[in-house]
Amino acid sequence: MTQFNWIAGAACAPKGFFVSAVCAGIRYSRNDLTLIASETPAVAAGVLTTNHVHAWCVAHNRERLVSGTAQAIVCNAGCANACNGARGKEDDHTMSSAISEALKQRFKSDSITVLTASTGTIGPHLPIDKVKNAVPELIKGMGNSTDDGTKAAQAIMTTDLVPKYCAIEFPLGGEKVRIGGMAKGSGMIAPNMATMLGFITTDVAIDHKALQPMLRRVVDRTFNSITVDGDTSTNDMVLVLANGASGAKASEDLATFEEALHAVCLFLSKSIARDGEGATKLIAVHLKNPPPNGHKIAKTIAESPLVKTACFGNDPNWGRILAAAGRAGVPFDPRGVVVRLAGFEVFRNGEPTTFDPKQVSAAMKVKELEIELEFSGNPKGDLTVWTCDFSYDYVKINADYTT
Amino acid sequence: MTQFNWIAGAACAPKGFFVSAVCAGIRYSRNDLTLIASETPAVAAGVLTTNHVHAWCVAHNRERLVSGTAQAIVCNAGCANACNGARGKEDDHTMSSAISEALKQRFKSDSITVLTASTGTIGPHLPIDKVKNAVPELIKGMGNSTDDGTKAAQAIMTTDLVPKYCAIEFPLGGEKVRIGGMAKGSGMIAPNMATMLGFITTDVAIDHKALQPMLRRVVDRTFNSITVDGDTSTNDMVLVLANGASGAKASEDLATFEEALHAVCLFLSKSIARDGEGATKLIAVHLKNPPPNGHKIAKTIAESPLVKTACFGNDPNWGRILAAAGRAGVPFDPRGVVVRLAGFEVFRNGEPTTFDPKQVSAAMKVKELEIELEFSGNPKGDLTVWTCDFSYDYVKINADYTT
Repeated sequence: MTQFNWIAGAACAPKGFFVSAVCAGIRYSRNDLTLIASETPAVAAGVLTTNHVHAWCVAHNRERLVSGTAQAIVCNAGCANACNGARGKEDDHTMSSAISEALKQRFKSDSITVLTASTGTIGPHLPIDKVKNAVPELIKGMGNSTDDGTKAAQAIMTTDLVPKYCAIEFPLGGEKVRIGGMAKGSGMIAPNMATMLGFITTDVAIDHKALQPMLRRVVDRTFNSITVDGDTSTNDMVLVLANGASGAKASEDLATFEEALHAVCLFLSKSIARDGEGATKLIAVHLKNPPPNGHKIAKTIAESPLVKTACFGNDPNWGRILAAAGRAGVPFDPRGVVVRLAGFEVFRNGEPTTFDPKQVSAAMKVKELEIELEFSGNPKGDLTVWTCDFSYDYVKINADYTT
Repeated sequence: MTQFNWIAGAACAPKGFFVSAVCAGIRYSRNDLTLIASETPAVAAGVLTTNHVHAWCVAHNRERLVSGTAQAIVCNAGCANACNGARGKEDDHTMSSAISEALKQRFKSDSITVLTASTGTIGPHLPIDKVKNAVPELIKGMGNSTDDGTKAAQAIMTTDLVPKYCAIEFPLGGEKVRIGGMAKGSGMIAPNMATMLGFITTDVAIDHKALQPMLRRVVDRTFNSITVDGDTSTNDMVLVLANGASGAKASEDLATFEEALHAVCLFLSKSIARDGEGATKLIAVHLKNPPPNGHKIAKTIAESPLVKTACFGNDPNWGRILAAAGRAGVPFDPRGVVVRLAGFEVFRNGEPTTFDPKQVSAAMKVKELEIELEFSGNPKGDLTVWTCDFSYDYVKINADYTT
């Protein structure tokens, strides 16, 4: 494992990237319109929601990503711009065109491709005039300081409690290179502002042909391995812009670059799971030597309201864990499974061990709880899914948006 | 649709059936050991949990049901007798043998096949001596009054709030025949006592070859169409005993018999959904003209914590319903879907209608809430899944079993 140097900063830490955030008044009286821009065209890759009901920004990016290049990402918070008819499509286009036109002037360029992202309530229209009016100030505010990075990460939040961002620096092909990023999401939350967004930037040069499948692999082990409540938003997306400004090429050491991309995505996605609504702890469901399709087992455990409430209550209720594993649709013999809870072995050889429930319960009172199931399957298949516990506050947050 | 005569009574309403319940002291200080017995051998059919982690009673019944006949069902409440090693299998056998021996004497029979059911905590062993000691009183108490039926339905409860039972009478082949039943379950509940059990009796004569597939069809539209939290217990089962004591043969009018069996199973399964932990209302997710595999859409909506909390809060949050539908893995075009909430059309032609949120919210304050999605698919494919809302009390019930 390469050791990465975690540095201050976020999406504007890599060379040649700028961010900006302003209050357009879409829904909030704080910053709610965010821009990430590269001063040169960047290779772009993306993983978009698989939900059959998807927002206009998802359709927009799906088209743009075919070319494999883009130079900016604009994100509004407060309005999902989804399920709102043809005007939604126009508004999405208006938002990206306004940014594109402004950046052409700023960067003296003939053509600037802009990706879009929206997060917020499903149904309403974007107050598009407010968005257009905010663009000049957004462009004017572009910067690349640590503070700028934090401000941008805050502006994409909806009901997130904390901003989520990070940056790393590491040597590649004789250069110091960087990957930075920010993310948002804390479960699908009232009123549907639960979108998971991840925006990653890097000053490493990499081909679209290499980056797109790499991003897919990394996202499967990070953003797609977290679950708060099993709901997938209409607007979920992870986007990467790679502008090559460092002069280093990923092809010099693709494995290290992928490891670095993984480290950034893992940091961001664990931050999302930890910030799940009402969560009091992060839960890692770790499978050792799982059978084929083991991720289904891990997800079923991680999404079980019964397992999540038991973790909230520090209840060493291994029966719920095993019952959830058993209904995941993946065959296995429970007699060959060892279950560990907060490090304690609680089930082996088809029956509970003689553990002390009070001791295990005490050990469960941690900020990061590990549930481990050891199978006798594939020793190379180890996998982890992260989630959070399920508290009174989850129900409160989700029931209290009444009309 | 045939009109059935709903009569007082439960599993002992059909001719030739007796029930009994005693306190064996398994976990409770109330009745916790229950018997259903037919005075003659009955045709037996069953649908058992698909969970790969299953209890000893499930394995027991799977073997017995091959023959297609049985004469009794014994059920203990308080101990799942699951995931507890080889002793669990022995205990299950001891319980069924003790009943079988006692019934042989009672009915002067050489051979009595007994099916078993257990519901309660996963892991612990059955206090098998207590069970054996209770058998004589259980046999002695066998009766077939309305009170006996209610008492039996109460004795199989764990954290259920109300007993669930019903009986109907209808003409078949010139005879008055009956189907009765009882059920338990209110979600997978603390501490894992969430098993869904359904025991149906009838005095109609029917072949095993006809009954088993019919039960499967009926269960798919009833017990398998309810969901409280998506968890499937290790012990779930629906069993039918048909003793033919009425003299009527189902083959005279198989369609009516199936309709009657469906009516009883639907009543019992809706009772389970209504009794979901912490539930304040029953929710019916109804799909009109759904695409193939539409049940996945209905289940995903019914299991979405976001939809369920919105229903608890009377929040007309159609975006959550549509987003849940979209992630079910079944392709459809949202522009072709009409969404109705408590009878109000809230979404059509890809965008929200101009409904009054306060009016819809007020209409959602009912004991039985209907969510309807109308597709432009198969007009013969209409289906309904029942669930309940998700309240503070759900979390309370499931987090409060601490050590």
